[in-house]
Amino acid sequence: MEEESSQFAEAMTTHNMEGETYEKERDPESNPLNQPLLKRSCTLSSNSLAMVGAKVSFIESLDYEINENNLFKDDWRSRSKVQVLQYIFLKWTLAFLVGLLTGLIATLINLAIENIAGYKLLAIVHLIQKRRFFMGFIYFTGANLLLTMVAAVLCVCFAPTAAGPGIPEIKAYLNGVDTPNMFGATTMFVKIIGSIGAVSAGLDLGKEGPLVHIGSCIASLLGQGGPNNYRLKWRWLRYFNNDRDRRDLITCGASSGVCAAFRAPVGGVLFSLEEVATWWRSALLWRTFFSTAVVVVVLRAFIELCNSGECGLFGTGGLIMFDVSNVTIRYHVMDIIPVAVIGIIGGVLGSLYNYLLHKVLRLYSLINQKGRIHKLLLCLTVSLFTSACQYGLPFLAKCRPCDSSLSETECPTNGRSGNFKQFNCPDGYYNDLATLLLTTIDDAVRNIFSTNTPYEYQTSSLLIFFALYCILGLFTFGIAVPSGLFLPIILMGSGYGRLLGIAMRSYTNIDQGLFAVLGAASLMAGSMRMTVSLCVIFLELTNNLLLLPITMIVLLIAKTVGDSFNPSIYEIILHLKGLPFLDAHPEPWMRNLTVGELADAKPPVITLHGVERVARIVDVLRNTTHNGFPVVDDGVVPPVGISTEATELHGIILRAHLLQALKKKWFLREKRRTEEWEVREKFTWVDLAEREEKIEQVAVMSDEMEMYIDLHPLTNTTPYTVLESMSVAKAMVLFRQVGLRHLLIVPKYVAAGVPPVVGILTRQDLRPYNILTAFPHLARSKGGEKGN
Amino acid sequence: MEEESSQFAEAMTTHNMEGETYEKERDPESNPLNQPLLKRSCTLSSNSLAMVGAKVSFIESLDYEINENNLFKDDWRSRSKVQVLQYIFLKWTLAFLVGLLTGLIATLINLAIENIAGYKLLAIVHLIQKRRFFMGFIYFTGANLLLTMVAAVLCVCFAPTAAGPGIPEIKAYLNGVDTPNMFGATTMFVKIIGSIGAVSAGLDLGKEGPLVHIGSCIASLLGQGGPNNYRLKWRWLRYFNNDRDRRDLITCGASSGVCAAFRAPVGGVLFSLEEVATWWRSALLWRTFFSTAVVVVVLRAFIELCNSGECGLFGTGGLIMFDVSNVTIRYHVMDIIPVAVIGIIGGVLGSLYNYLLHKVLRLYSLINQKGRIHKLLLCLTVSLFTSACQYGLPFLAKCRPCDSSLSETECPTNGRSGNFKQFNCPDGYYNDLATLLLTTIDDAVRNIFSTNTPYEYQTSSLLIFFALYCILGLFTFGIAVPSGLFLPIILMGSGYGRLLGIAMRSYTNIDQGLFAVLGAASLMAGSMRMTVSLCVIFLELTNNLLLLPITMIVLLIAKTVGDSFNPSIYEIILHLKGLPFLDAHPEPWMRNLTVGELADAKPPVITLHGVERVARIVDVLRNTTHNGFPVVDDGVVPPVGISTEATELHGIILRAHLLQALKKKWFLREKRRTEEWEVREKFTWVDLAEREEKIEQVAVMSDEMEMYIDLHPLTNTTPYTVLESMSVAKAMVLFRQVGLRHLLIVPKYVAAGVPPVVGILTRQDLRPYNILTAFPHLARSKGGEKGN
Repeated sequence: MEEESSQFAEAMTTHNMEGETYEKERDPESNPLNQPLLKRSCTLSSNSLAMVGAKVSFIESLDYEINENNLFKDDWRSRSKVQVLQYIFLKWTLAFLVGLLTGLIATLINLAIENIAGYKLLAIVHLIQKRRFFMGFIYFTGANLLLTMVAAVLCVCFAPTAAGPGIPEIKAYLNGVDTPNMFGATTMFVKIIGSIGAVSAGLDLGKEGPLVHIGSCIASLLGQGGPNNYRLKWRWLRYFNNDRDRRDLITCGASSGVCAAFRAPVGGVLFSLEEVATWWRSALLWRTFFSTAVVVVVLRAFIELCNSGECGLFGTGGLIMFDVSNVTIRYHVMDIIPVAVIGIIGGVLGSLYNYLLHKVLRLYSLINQKGRIHKLLLCLTVSLFTSACQYGLPFLAKCRPCDSSLSETECPTNGRSGNFKQFNCPDGYYNDLATLLLTTIDDAVRNIFSTNTPYEYQTSSLLIFFALYCILGLFTFGIAVPSGLFLPIILMGSGYGRLLGIAMRSYTNIDQGLFAVLGAASLMAGSMRMTVSLCVIFLELTNNLLLLPITMIVLLIAKTVGDSFNPSIYEIILHLKGLPFLDAHPEPWMRNLTVGELADAKPPVITLHGVERVARIVDVLRNTTHNGFPVVDDGVVPPVGISTEATELHGIILRAHLLQALKKKWFLREKRRTEEWEVREKFTWVDLAEREEKIEQVAVMSDEMEMYIDLHPLTNTTPYTVLESMSVAKAMVLFRQVGLRHLLIVPKYVAAGVPPVVGILTRQDLRPYNILTAFPHLARSKGGEKGN
Repeated sequence: MEEESSQFAEAMTTHNMEGETYEKERDPESNPLNQPLLKRSCTLSSNSLAMVGAKVSFIESLDYEINENNLFKDDWRSRSKVQVLQYIFLKWTLAFLVGLLTGLIATLINLAIENIAGYKLLAIVHLIQKRRFFMGFIYFTGANLLLTMVAAVLCVCFAPTAAGPGIPEIKAYLNGVDTPNMFGATTMFVKIIGSIGAVSAGLDLGKEGPLVHIGSCIASLLGQGGPNNYRLKWRWLRYFNNDRDRRDLITCGASSGVCAAFRAPVGGVLFSLEEVATWWRSALLWRTFFSTAVVVVVLRAFIELCNSGECGLFGTGGLIMFDVSNVTIRYHVMDIIPVAVIGIIGGVLGSLYNYLLHKVLRLYSLINQKGRIHKLLLCLTVSLFTSACQYGLPFLAKCRPCDSSLSETECPTNGRSGNFKQFNCPDGYYNDLATLLLTTIDDAVRNIFSTNTPYEYQTSSLLIFFALYCILGLFTFGIAVPSGLFLPIILMGSGYGRLLGIAMRSYTNIDQGLFAVLGAASLMAGSMRMTVSLCVIFLELTNNLLLLPITMIVLLIAKTVGDSFNPSIYEIILHLKGLPFLDAHPEPWMRNLTVGELADAKPPVITLHGVERVARIVDVLRNTTHNGFPVVDDGVVPPVGISTEATELHGIILRAHLLQALKKKWFLREKRRTEEWEVREKFTWVDLAEREEKIEQVAVMSDEMEMYIDLHPLTNTTPYTVLESMSVAKAMVLFRQVGLRHLLIVPKYVAAGVPPVVGILTRQDLRPYNILTAFPHLARSKGGEKGN
């Protein structure tokens, strides 16, 4: 940890470093695994660091607020009806394109995985049929190592942000946190190819999480008109050059991704709504639904196309869908007991998984920080271990005779996906463990979910399967390849469910396959803590509505049990990465603190004058990292009533806009306000939407330093404000509900000489961890009620 | 209309009356059908009137804000962990009870309707079999009139608010508008019995809307511990004696109602989310889902019980569920054309229906205002017309021979629910129009949705059916009985869909029954403008996932087409009733107006001092109808910095709390601040939660008038504020997102003598209609972009 904090040292200003030292002395936890990976100062600071793709980066907040300055007003006043229609048309076109492209790329990924993994497995089956088991092992392991290598090298060298599922970062983005390089073109391509490689390599990870990320990347790239360096300069796209519209697009993209992963359009929309999105509007629900509808149509068209056999090995498998609609489900009131048991154990296992994964991820991030070679070696080790287990363990299982009711093509199955793999067994016999292990992950799920096969799997085989995938599920997720969490959890859960089904065989007549489905659902709910969206996703996967009531009960119980132990896996990852995610509920002790007290703990607020000297602006921009500055006018005579001179709070100006003003050299020789026509001539709204500049890139001559800038036209005159007596709890509700970046604190006293702004609140100031380090006494009263 | 406004005159203060007159002169629309039913003044006022159950009543806003005053802080600081657990336990218990009771009452209603309507129809079938047609008509009409009479008399005399669906009022409640007598015990009982009567009477209305209302009533009654006059004084229930927790409970109740109506748990949750609720939190999603799960379990248990035949005629019908899961759905890319046609026509018809229903409702409200007798007569006329058509029209249809593939028990069907009713036909023949008309409404839907019966209905019969239900759908909804909108629209839509199916028979091989389902979906989307929730409800009703993609496309097209003509039917009803519903999107012209300008158009704000004379408080309460007053302290010396005296904005105090202070006679002889121990002794948080008092009921002696009250402990010290330069658009976003009742406007100038509060914004001030009457010039620039 020592090296880590010294890495950060450069980025921190002096008072932060002091805080860091103080923090270290106070911290009683000496075990490095218990410390947060990222430390922050104990006074409130606006420095924000986060783990982005196992690297520490600066992160920025997003501006969802409509920046109502003169230029903006001019711009939208001048928008004609035609332009409004352009905007609406483009909004829907983009939603359509997001759906279309996500659907196409999902099909492509499925096709590639099924074919690569399929031909790999075919070759091994041929070797095994010739009883050349060792050759088969070499071939299997070699192919898997190669595929893992491709995925890992791409991830490590070109796009570290493509590793992992990406869902926590999307969640943070939609909460208002911009993690750099998350939605770029490179990230997307690495994610696509890496995902194909990693899943084909038989690693215990899914393509579902990555698909959500890919959907979001597509949305983001479409919205900005292409990759960063080769943007399309189409005039219409300027409407989407703001954080609000990008947020909506990315929500569409995330939903489309889930929909493409599970072929679940309603589930996709609900997943975004329940798990990913922070802000949500009815209009967005509708647009998201449109995107997922397009995805489903694309997927269906391709499935029809592939059913005719033109897609290689695809068509028989791929696009997981565990259709159990032909199973007649009979259950009675007494079946509530096994169902409740599934839920309770699922909840316990899920939270245990969260706990252990947290430890493993901390360990891995220590390894990953050591450099690229370590990352690569970790990936290859995991791949080697996975391959060895998948190939070696089936030898432990006893061969079982095929059921006489099955035809010879059904059992044993060789050379295609399906139940009853022969592996090392004589003809007419099958190896049940090979059925589960030596296959693609999608097929493994389909096999273990299979209904009306109550005696297919031996208890010992299921135990080995469950134990193996518990270990793999813990140790695979953190490696530097694109990896989803859904499939590993489904595999673990289905193994556990089917085991439980065997144990309860005498008490209930619920099918074994349904036990597996319910087990998977319970573990998902126990780990991810979603309810309605998971329920709908499982409904759409299994295509059987009669299953709905028991699925609901399982999910509710598992989530309740899990919630009593620890937070959801996504929250754990968000916390590990140090992303400043704002929770929906304020902590109860926040009611005991006013924003005024919070502002006192921060360095004093830096305000600018309405007409400010260039030198001061440059100075302020160089020496602070703030992104917003209140603009205050002294000695103004208010229009009515009072004759004395007053101080006027004109609004707030953004760093980006100040930089634009400096760059465009919009200087005045004398201290005066500019006329409206001057403003219209010099600036357009398009200029202000650019955010890429840095103060170091702006050159200001020394004679220009003595000139003035009129900030009035650039100032957002309608900032959100709170009184200094407002409690932090209520300020946080406001901040999150409205989606703010800056919140001005105004004094509750009115008198001559009182400054019109007491302070500024940002996202970092409202994080419980940051507040508690600055006000440690609040932690003692922490035990109270979690606000409604 | 003249009488109407004179009715209001008493309730209006002088300046409002002036506004009213001005308004009348300006209004160019002379047709009374085009005028809004309720008029408001042209200066901004806080008077609020709405149509509640065809009567004009005063309505209040709800306080969702946490009122952070000293008492509240004491209260929650003193809450121990046990109390927090009590609260959580009770929250879930209430959610469970809401689900349980809604499920039970829904079953009861279904049982009653099926049995009453069933025995009625049985008797008529017996008469018809004896060819005593006229006797049958008398019997049919008489029974229907009697049942309608029961429903109507109950509604008119005991609970006018029980008429109609209740969904618009629930929507308004969850938006923050409290309509009186909406959730009382009387309303609930009248709604239950009225709904049974009205549906059994064969009127063209459903029990779905009323079930939603009943669910909400149950939730509200449980939350407050029983009916108004006989409340349970259980200590635990005090946690729920606030608007926030009631809001959550009622959301649960509404979801449970939809779930009970359609046996669609996920659909119920989504319906609340998409259509009914304004604020939504992830935690609420989960609790609502729990309630609907309970409802489903209750319904299933009863269906199992009734399948054994112990529920009279129930068990064969009831609880609409149009299971088409056994239909193999095959569709190709070219089927998109008929699907798109269904959507487009459905959208047009839906918006046409909205338009016409608007006119009819306006006409009806003019009739209903004339008195109870008129209301009753209207109900009976509609019932008579319905009965006559349902009985008479089938004689127009030709008898058709039964298909030879059907057994004799299947065709013709007599004496039970099912297709192929015999009616006036000879044996071996059936009357297709009687199948659709002379049956319960649920059965009619099931019959017209029936699949694999492509030649059952003649085009002429379907045309008659469609035309009849269009007329009935328009003229039944507004009468004074509990009535839902879902079923009438489904009936219309299914008729239209099946007609379209016949017209397209040669182009596509989509089943006729599916055409009926899609037609119903398209008309629902065209009129109600829901997408995801309708999609899920239809999915859960039809139990066939393969239908999902085409349902989605139909819904999206129909909603888009409908939206281009007029708002949704619920918005139309909200507008008609004059409920001050706050839309999610500010109007574009709101960006051109600041809240400061808005405040100038209102009468000056009335502030109280921190320690105020009793006489002034009584005076203020008597002469204004405001519900919140800013509390301001003059001549305070701020703790730091400035030596001069300042004016301090201490917070906002609610009318209810002032009344409590007066009632409890918490007076001080001298002008001083009270000590904390005094506060704790005299007041508890429970007292402050009471809202029932009126100033007229509080007696203050004349010697007490000269005493003082210290308002500090009762004042909410953390009100939400906006700067006077904030645009109305942004203030409205804040108001709605955070769920406020009062929003203080603070000055942007700081100087001695500036008042610390410029004005107060309430819900009424932010309504577009009210703003436009005060600032007519804004209407001209109305055409701009609808803010994203």
